[in-house]
Amino acid sequence: MTAIWEPESKFRIWFEIEAHATDKLADLGVVPKAAAKALWDWWATNPVIEVAAIDAIEAVTKHDVIAFLTWVSENVGDQARFMHQGMTSSDVLDTCLNVQLARASDLLIEDLDKLLVVIERRAMEHKLTPTIGRSHGIHAEPVTFGLKLAQAYAEFARNRERLIAARADIATCAISGAVGTFANIDPQVEEHVAEKMGLSVEPVSTQVIPRDRHAMYFATLGVIASSIERLATEVRHLQRTEVLEAEEYFSPGQKGSSAMPHKRNPVLTENLTGLARMVRGYVVPALENVALWHERDISHSSVERYIGPDATITLDFALQRLTGVMDKLVIYPVRMEKNLNKMGGLVHSQRVLLALTQAGVSREDAYRLVQRNAMKVWESDGELSLLELLKADGEVTAALSNAEIEAKFDLGYHFKHVDTIFTRVFGKTA
Amino acid sequence: MTAIWEPESKFRIWFEIEAHATDKLADLGVVPKAAAKALWDWWATNPVIEVAAIDAIEAVTKHDVIAFLTWVSENVGDQARFMHQGMTSSDVLDTCLNVQLARASDLLIEDLDKLLVVIERRAMEHKLTPTIGRSHGIHAEPVTFGLKLAQAYAEFARNRERLIAARADIATCAISGAVGTFANIDPQVEEHVAEKMGLSVEPVSTQVIPRDRHAMYFATLGVIASSIERLATEVRHLQRTEVLEAEEYFSPGQKGSSAMPHKRNPVLTENLTGLARMVRGYVVPALENVALWHERDISHSSVERYIGPDATITLDFALQRLTGVMDKLVIYPVRMEKNLNKMGGLVHSQRVLLALTQAGVSREDAYRLVQRNAMKVWESDGELSLLELLKADGEVTAALSNAEIEAKFDLGYHFKHVDTIFTRVFGKTA
Amino acid sequence: MTAIWEPESKFRIWFEIEAHATDKLADLGVVPKAAAKALWDWWATNPVIEVAAIDAIEAVTKHDVIAFLTWVSENVGDQARFMHQGMTSSDVLDTCLNVQLARASDLLIEDLDKLLVVIERRAMEHKLTPTIGRSHGIHAEPVTFGLKLAQAYAEFARNRERLIAARADIATCAISGAVGTFANIDPQVEEHVAEKMGLSVEPVSTQVIPRDRHAMYFATLGVIASSIERLATEVRHLQRTEVLEAEEYFSPGQKGSSAMPHKRNPVLTENLTGLARMVRGYVVPALENVALWHERDISHSSVERYIGPDATITLDFALQRLTGVMDKLVIYPVRMEKNLNKMGGLVHSQRVLLALTQAGVSREDAYRLVQRNAMKVWESDGELSLLELLKADGEVTAALSNAEIEAKFDLGYHFKHVDTIFTRVFGKTA
Amino acid sequence: MTAIWEPESKFRIWFEIEAHATDKLADLGVVPKAAAKALWDWWATNPVIEVAAIDAIEAVTKHDVIAFLTWVSENVGDQARFMHQGMTSSDVLDTCLNVQLARASDLLIEDLDKLLVVIERRAMEHKLTPTIGRSHGIHAEPVTFGLKLAQAYAEFARNRERLIAARADIATCAISGAVGTFANIDPQVEEHVAEKMGLSVEPVSTQVIPRDRHAMYFATLGVIASSIERLATEVRHLQRTEVLEAEEYFSPGQKGSSAMPHKRNPVLTENLTGLARMVRGYVVPALENVALWHERDISHSSVERYIGPDATITLDFALQRLTGVMDKLVIYPVRMEKNLNKMGGLVHSQRVLLALTQAGVSREDAYRLVQRNAMKVWESDGELSLLELLKADGEVTAALSNAEIEAKFDLGYHFKHVDTIFTRVFGKTA
Repeated sequence: MTAIWEPESKFRIWFEIEAHATDKLADLGVVPKAAAKALWDWWATNPVIEVAAIDAIEAVTKHDVIAFLTWVSENVGDQARFMHQGMTSSDVLDTCLNVQLARASDLLIEDLDKLLVVIERRAMEHKLTPTIGRSHGIHAEPVTFGLKLAQAYAEFARNRERLIAARADIATCAISGAVGTFANIDPQVEEHVAEKMGLSVEPVSTQVIPRDRHAMYFATLGVIASSIERLATEVRHLQRTEVLEAEEYFSPGQKGSSAMPHKRNPVLTENLTGLARMVRGYVVPALENVALWHERDISHSSVERYIGPDATITLDFALQRLTGVMDKLVIYPVRMEKNLNKMGGLVHSQRVLLALTQAGVSREDAYRLVQRNAMKVWESDGELSLLELLKADGEVTAALSNAEIEAKFDLGYHFKHVDTIFTRVFGKTA
Repeated sequence: MTAIWEPESKFRIWFEIEAHATDKLADLGVVPKAAAKALWDWWATNPVIEVAAIDAIEAVTKHDVIAFLTWVSENVGDQARFMHQGMTSSDVLDTCLNVQLARASDLLIEDLDKLLVVIERRAMEHKLTPTIGRSHGIHAEPVTFGLKLAQAYAEFARNRERLIAARADIATCAISGAVGTFANIDPQVEEHVAEKMGLSVEPVSTQVIPRDRHAMYFATLGVIASSIERLATEVRHLQRTEVLEAEEYFSPGQKGSSAMPHKRNPVLTENLTGLARMVRGYVVPALENVALWHERDISHSSVERYIGPDATITLDFALQRLTGVMDKLVIYPVRMEKNLNKMGGLVHSQRVLLALTQAGVSREDAYRLVQRNAMKVWESDGELSLLELLKADGEVTAALSNAEIEAKFDLGYHFKHVDTIFTRVFGKTA
Repeated sequence: MTAIWEPESKFRIWFEIEAHATDKLADLGVVPKAAAKALWDWWATNPVIEVAAIDAIEAVTKHDVIAFLTWVSENVGDQARFMHQGMTSSDVLDTCLNVQLARASDLLIEDLDKLLVVIERRAMEHKLTPTIGRSHGIHAEPVTFGLKLAQAYAEFARNRERLIAARADIATCAISGAVGTFANIDPQVEEHVAEKMGLSVEPVSTQVIPRDRHAMYFATLGVIASSIERLATEVRHLQRTEVLEAEEYFSPGQKGSSAMPHKRNPVLTENLTGLARMVRGYVVPALENVALWHERDISHSSVERYIGPDATITLDFALQRLTGVMDKLVIYPVRMEKNLNKMGGLVHSQRVLLALTQAGVSREDAYRLVQRNAMKVWESDGELSLLELLKADGEVTAALSNAEIEAKFDLGYHFKHVDTIFTRVFGKTA
Repeated sequence: MTAIWEPESKFRIWFEIEAHATDKLADLGVVPKAAAKALWDWWATNPVIEVAAIDAIEAVTKHDVIAFLTWVSENVGDQARFMHQGMTSSDVLDTCLNVQLARASDLLIEDLDKLLVVIERRAMEHKLTPTIGRSHGIHAEPVTFGLKLAQAYAEFARNRERLIAARADIATCAISGAVGTFANIDPQVEEHVAEKMGLSVEPVSTQVIPRDRHAMYFATLGVIASSIERLATEVRHLQRTEVLEAEEYFSPGQKGSSAMPHKRNPVLTENLTGLARMVRGYVVPALENVALWHERDISHSSVERYIGPDATITLDFALQRLTGVMDKLVIYPVRMEKNLNKMGGLVHSQRVLLALTQAGVSREDAYRLVQRNAMKVWESDGELSLLELLKADGEVTAALSNAEIEAKFDLGYHFKHVDTIFTRVFGKTA
């Protein structure tokens, strides 16, 4: 990802834009065919991009594109003077930025693909690993760890679709001259370069490509970052000392603390939380970039010089880090079970209540029966078992047999539609 | 738009969700068919939604959905007790919010459609109205006013596509029970309600519908708001005293100032600029809502109670206001021409330079000839005409005939591809 | 707080500004003294502010200040025509907004004062209640619950100072005429009104009061909101099922869930988390309001119509809610102790390590001895006690007596500077 | 500014913190006095900070502070082992960050001082240079260019005060051990280091220094950036082709365009506009950093690694750039006068209206008389002069003498309080 934003990459893209444009200009008879050929012949020698030399020229000309063209001319010779005919710097700069963002998108889509593969694998592994579902941080009802991961999978799959849409939004080419009128360049040049660079044609530009496209792009990255924060936060919660249902992988040599073996901190996911804040922070500047003055001003440029690389590199790093975390996440099903039972079976109380009602006990009585046993369990801090208490409560057993009571404590009841959900999310159940 | 967010609308949607769910529960044999029938029979009487009565019940029960169900029961009678079986409040609340956001989207799409119609009409009217193109607020080269509007049209057409995608993202239905496992309700109920309410099924929910969907939705509104700001800013610039190429419509009686007839302020577009800031301001809270804890917490709710109505109502109002502004925008082609000529024809100097070169004058000499006349024009603050000065410059006329010089001052040269652009943007040229 | 933003309050402030200005204008001989007297005489009758009547006039005049002046004239009679001489609407509107924000600040400072009183009381109560300190969500070393609250106290005390500074920043008065030149009004009028309204003089205004002041104000509210989020997040963590060291107060009748007594959700602090997002969301629009065009545009106005009331009312509500939560927070010292010991004394392992070294054991050996016992404790999931294991380890007891070992498990060691910290924070220790 | 954020600076600050702490530890008898002496003796040799060597150690230890301490030990020898006793890495890292931010503040305050000097000089130069005041971009009433600059001065003077307050907020020192209890280190060490490093003592820390301080700091930078945007926007407006009242300085050789001498773009101020967006964009991540979990998590760290350097370096650059722009701003009083008169004197119409009324003409008639002449001027697009028309209107001259009419066109009337304002803002008038 960093390579995309290196000066060398930029200059390579500039050359390709200029050379393809020259091809079409030659086709149209505006410049000699030999000019285009000279450019490509030189390019075929796979020349080193001399960034320092170009920078040195820019120090004199104070103009980046002219510096680049000068350097190309020095290498290609006289034929190079036909390059850039009728074009403006923005034609090159804006199209190049979009090529870079499109390539960045490709890497990010790859990152998402890898993350999805990992999440799917872990989800399948733990499809039926019971764990407590929590609302408000409080135990609610049983879920499986695979379901948690299915949710994450579905969320990142949505993000993949959004990124593909954002890529399509951003991947346009404009070669339309000083204020976008094509006064000095034929629209066919734009069409040709767009096709060659894998871009679509910008229908109407105003020297610059309109910045609502970029705003949408960076807003989408902000959404993806927020999803990263969500999954990272889940891991951080699971790794808490009191919960400890999962942990970031610790390499054998790694130490959180010299003497305290429990001191393994979820530092990777905490780091991801911070990175998510940064990528989100780039959204508003991108939105503020939309309202350029008249046909263009250049206020967007300083913003993009930061957020172009920073948002994509940060997100790329974050997605890979998250993939690593999920890939190696140490999952503790035994602890999950222990936590699940922590409340002594209180999570099943609603089903018992319902069963009592269906067995003919009045709603008020049923409630009273469940409640008085549930309170004992609660006050014992999970030492007592609701199941055992219920089986020892004569009023309860008068209505329900032991087997009937036990049936209400069956986790399978909660998991009977896991396959349905997996099919929806993964298109398969294993 | 405001109606969507009224309590009555909400309660109507709640009823529909509950009644459709009861239908399916009856189909599945979970509740009596009579229960579903009773609900719909009552609904067919088109009952008044007694908001105050429901609120009064909530004041006691401290629970909005239970209050509503109680009120329905009071009206429908005993059969109503089968409603809501196996469901949680969030099933109703979250699905309802998405119905509201989907309906809000429909209105916003309508708003965009109307705006697009108006912009297209004005663009066609002024397809060839010459005006100066400005980069950095400085005169650059001629464009047409229609081209400015074509750009705006293309931008809002993109926004329309984005909003359609955001609507699809948000328009989902979840009826999956306490932690999303369908433990107490069959997934077919969800599928049925989704179909009836015009929603798609949420593949996996966790009591709540995942908030990355809402984040994407509000981010999209933020992009649209930024485009509104862009067009509003253009109008504000055009209405400046020194520019005055266009003005917001002033009704005959309206006065900007008692004695100064020039004091017509672009207050509508300034207002739009502020509204855009607000809608943008709602993006970050929506992004921060994504990382709920575990299966859910309720921190998103207070945020959505503000931004659900505020963002959609504000954007709806802003789009309609912008449509009104563009519809009635008073456009001054005479002033546009005057401004275009303000620099005494300097905007054509590049073409003259090129013509001299092509006529055999060395680049250095050509530059010197153009420059010495351009400087005179510049120093006269537009009083002198470059065309006249060139025709009076012997060295120039030695290379170019008067007709040839005049040809370089032809605006048509700049507008020859306007039809190409219009075809791209509007699919037609008139 | 809501009252501050009611139309009636606004009109009352408008009247006071106008009447005080008329006083000074009379002093300066610009208007008759009788005019000022007439205004105050009427005001002394404590007239009802007829909002509907004023609105009805505005519907005709399309100008809020003129409508108000007309209504006053209708009540006061002919002398009222001398009001507003040389002033502009912005003089009244902007000064009024600042009065409202200053009054809002006073309420918010009161809110902070009440919160500080409550936090101090709870901190003193639990000055020496031992609890585990956690870094990264992982047990670290012992702290006291009072220390946690001392931190919160210090943070909100800082916020109080910041709010006082922000209030001073915002509490200015501008009565400087059309573009701030005092062309038609003497600066002494401004000085007089400022003094009477408890404001400072705006040194230079441009029809409007510069918006960097308001930006700073709302940014400060955003910081306070973030501190609210921090303390709310702490409570949410403490209330988690597995932690349960504190809980939001549940009134006896209140039910989180019908049958599960553990289902008490930290809904107030989750709500506060969402509200913090909103107040933070208002910061950026306020910052974007600073760069008005030239002497003023009116884009700030629509923003302020939202965030003026919304940010202050939300923050006021949030501070009061947080105060309520902290006041009644149910704190469980027994559970804190249980959690503190959860790791079987591992939190003391570092001190034992140091003691062994100081007793002459090599660092490597000391580490090995502690580690082998610590690992056993860790693997027992807190069932075994590090203290007991160490006392049973011959190599350890060869270096340290039982009394020496036990001394290392003394919590008092960690709390010896609690008084120092309390003195720093509260200026007292009890 | 960049130097502050170089690894070498960081390591130097780390050393100072550690060495001062060792001094106090020696005083307290915890470590040998020779240890402290050894550190300072080595430091007195002005040793090169071998960043690469430290990094190499970190590559092995995976811990930055330990790597640094190891490197110091290698240089100082055995006595260095007494360093860092009872401290945690955060004690060093957090205190160092605050030293860096305090130093950055000092540079930023210097930047503001230089900017204020330049603005004051230009304001005095143009104290009485007449120019048109504009509200809503529309001509309103006359102001002076000096008044515009006085406003900017007052705004940046406020920002200077805010930055001083933010510096005080951030300049704290915490050396309080693992969870802030001072269990293993005496609070006197913290007090000593604070004093030596020019910091105040953090009253209560929790391993980390509370992040509300940093939030306030970066929020303040966001406000300053917004003020930069405001002044930059003013320059951009003034440089517009149609306005051209001021221009960014163009060096003689510099070219905006090869042939068009008017093509001087306000690229510096446009750049500043973009930079302001970035600094503003860093505010929200800083606000989100406040709510760390329990005693600390490390999510703030990745955020600060970006925004610490980026916000301060960007703002430093922006302030210097703005100072350069204002210092060399080319101001065109002739054009200002021309623009001021552009409306043919309409800006004086209100004063004529008032004079007619005071001369006994009814308000209705006065309005009609002014209006009919004003409309002619307006329709002539500034070709006709209101003054001349009024002097030629019999009904007007029946009430007012030519001298009386002319007196109403006196700019001095508008500027009579300029000295008052200058005294308020600058404390002097020249």
